[in-house]
Amino acid sequence: MDMLKGACIIGQSGGPTAVINASAYGAIRAALDAEAITRVYGAAHGIRGVLDDKLYIMDEEDPEELKLLLNTPSSELGSCRYKMKDPDEDETDYKRILEIFKKYDVHYFFYNGGNDSMDTCNKVSKYMQRVGYPCRVMGIPKTIDNDLFGTDHCPGYASAAKYIATSCMEVSKDATVYDNAQITVVEIMGRHAGWLAAAAGLATYFGAGPDLIYLPEVDFDMDKLYADVDRIYATKNKVLIAVSEGIHYADGRFVSEAETSATDGFGHAQLGGLAVKLADALKNHLGGVKVRGIELSLLQRCGAHLASANDVKEAELAGRVAVESAVAGKTDYMVAFKRVMQDGQYTCETELLPLAEVANYEKKVPLEWINADRNGVTKDFIDYALPLIQGQPERPTECSLPRYARLKKVLAK
Amino acid sequence: MDMLKGACIIGQSGGPTAVINASAYGAIRAALDAEAITRVYGAAHGIRGVLDDKLYIMDEEDPEELKLLLNTPSSELGSCRYKMKDPDEDETDYKRILEIFKKYDVHYFFYNGGNDSMDTCNKVSKYMQRVGYPCRVMGIPKTIDNDLFGTDHCPGYASAAKYIATSCMEVSKDATVYDNAQITVVEIMGRHAGWLAAAAGLATYFGAGPDLIYLPEVDFDMDKLYADVDRIYATKNKVLIAVSEGIHYADGRFVSEAETSATDGFGHAQLGGLAVKLADALKNHLGGVKVRGIELSLLQRCGAHLASANDVKEAELAGRVAVESAVAGKTDYMVAFKRVMQDGQYTCETELLPLAEVANYEKKVPLEWINADRNGVTKDFIDYALPLIQGQPERPTECSLPRYARLKKVLAK
Repeated sequence: MDMLKGACIIGQSGGPTAVINASAYGAIRAALDAEAITRVYGAAHGIRGVLDDKLYIMDEEDPEELKLLLNTPSSELGSCRYKMKDPDEDETDYKRILEIFKKYDVHYFFYNGGNDSMDTCNKVSKYMQRVGYPCRVMGIPKTIDNDLFGTDHCPGYASAAKYIATSCMEVSKDATVYDNAQITVVEIMGRHAGWLAAAAGLATYFGAGPDLIYLPEVDFDMDKLYADVDRIYATKNKVLIAVSEGIHYADGRFVSEAETSATDGFGHAQLGGLAVKLADALKNHLGGVKVRGIELSLLQRCGAHLASANDVKEAELAGRVAVESAVAGKTDYMVAFKRVMQDGQYTCETELLPLAEVANYEKKVPLEWINADRNGVTKDFIDYALPLIQGQPERPTECSLPRYARLKKVLAK
Repeated sequence: MDMLKGACIIGQSGGPTAVINASAYGAIRAALDAEAITRVYGAAHGIRGVLDDKLYIMDEEDPEELKLLLNTPSSELGSCRYKMKDPDEDETDYKRILEIFKKYDVHYFFYNGGNDSMDTCNKVSKYMQRVGYPCRVMGIPKTIDNDLFGTDHCPGYASAAKYIATSCMEVSKDATVYDNAQITVVEIMGRHAGWLAAAAGLATYFGAGPDLIYLPEVDFDMDKLYADVDRIYATKNKVLIAVSEGIHYADGRFVSEAETSATDGFGHAQLGGLAVKLADALKNHLGGVKVRGIELSLLQRCGAHLASANDVKEAELAGRVAVESAVAGKTDYMVAFKRVMQDGQYTCETELLPLAEVANYEKKVPLEWINADRNGVTKDFIDYALPLIQGQPERPTECSLPRYARLKKVLAK
């Protein structure tokens, strides 16, 4: 195969993670090192940076600062949630992207994100093929939600899982410290898939975690919650509960949004999240016991100080493999992970999946990994998740606080 | 001085911290090693354990497990918020304590806590003196609030401060990632003193922190907040705000509890905390911009995985010095910290303060350490706080999750 010479664009999209910058580093470093790639651009705020002609020249960055991306949370190039129209409906965006690709001689496009981003990748690639513009397009997976189809797990998930498990262990220590009764509800991200909330089960497995865990894979029932809590409350007067933000009633309404007669407070859904709502309902149910709702919020998404070394390594690998595969002639793939267990030892290998196959599917927690009582996870989930969260990455600090990459972000003219 | 032979009781009180167990370890280890101390009891849930005759025999614990207390958050012996009456009013509790002291031949009492606990110490000691029962009583300081009088800082503060600063750095990365406008409000503990919220200023100092910080030392004004936010919003469309939970209007009403006409939502104070309330108010003020309220909640209090090595070391020291001083004949003191700066190097020395002098006073952030605009901290605060948060303690783990002390907690009969 002929070498395709040209510049590349690397973009970050969707919700940030603790390690999406590690993937960016893997891709940027590999692109800077690749003979075929003449210039490396980072798109400001993902595909918006392409549309708006805001590209940072990565070749201008200090290599040591770039390397700090390995431990810098969130999306350092900026992210977006812009959803492009189907090219059959409206070609405007695609024409503009082609214009920018031509302007900067771009023939490689790497896009790092979740389901929607893989869809964006796929549409851009199909358009370029249709108009006959040579461009190799690769998707790099990312999402704390862990819901991408076809990959054993997603970069970003493990670090969020580790943050959640560690935080639940700490909260379980704190929330049981008084002799008084106390109900604590921890709200964890995950609108449709319960992978993140399930990670609270790691804390339970190690003896200091939630008594009850509710995932969106199973319909939620308030009376079932009351019964579960009553049972635990009867033996110890403290109950710690972890819930996915996406739990919903059998009719599909999210608990976080639904009105309910269970408590007076539920009419004011705009204030306070699910954790506070459920804590309030349990307070009423138990007749005034002390309750506390805790939302892990953005903290779980960007807890780079608790990142998993495996996650950082694998995220970097995914970025690097995307670039190396494209240079070797591949296009229209997403880099995926395959778990290889040898003599009980976990290793992670990459494979390439056609973009069209992964875009817009959601992978959920298998029902067999949720316990029979539907309020916890099984050992199968622990065995799945535990290898992913292993290792503490090197963590550059400055006066004992994190030292993040400080990029120059020189704009291409 | 004659050696006072007898058993000792160590109790933990008030809100837990990341390092109160390090103080317990310092005290327990020193007591186990002291010739004068015949037996070491840990009170279950502080003074309640004494009143309820629930004492754990620390001599029965495995020394290696005990040592894990150095990195176990919260109060492993259990805590309480029980406030004893004045002995002049009601002697019941004091008589019971004397009975228990006699039953177990206790002549040393060490109590680890904040303002109220120093008051408890003082009352117990005065009573024992009055009835002529020989008992040496020492207070060990502890509070994330950092508001104890007479000590440069309090064990527990630095680790919470480090957690807050690190989390604010991570949130600042996450909350600025999209190209859209976004207002984020982080709520930090501290009902009367702003030491914890001020720690968010460390993140700002290192280039990735809140734009605005409001402390309870200064009256809060909603119009001033709007003006501050408008100014920043005009130059960049993202504003990150840190507030102490204790901010209050000029008339003394807590913002978290007050009704206000500034926003419709304010009538429903029972749901959602201050962060959500302020975020909601700013959403209305700016006409519908995306907002997010984040409450650091219990997480900031027990984030042992982010503990400061200096804090752990000093907390242990405080516990040890309390025991060694009592054995050497001292009583009715609290161990306090004195900061010694030599050639720009920070060291921490201990001194003993009479309990009667420290009990029930609150130390606040000096107004000179709050900036002229009353929305941030000065370099003086940074210079004060930075040495305290230094160092990453050794952190025992099990499968990359924290390994906490697992005590046997054998009850004395």
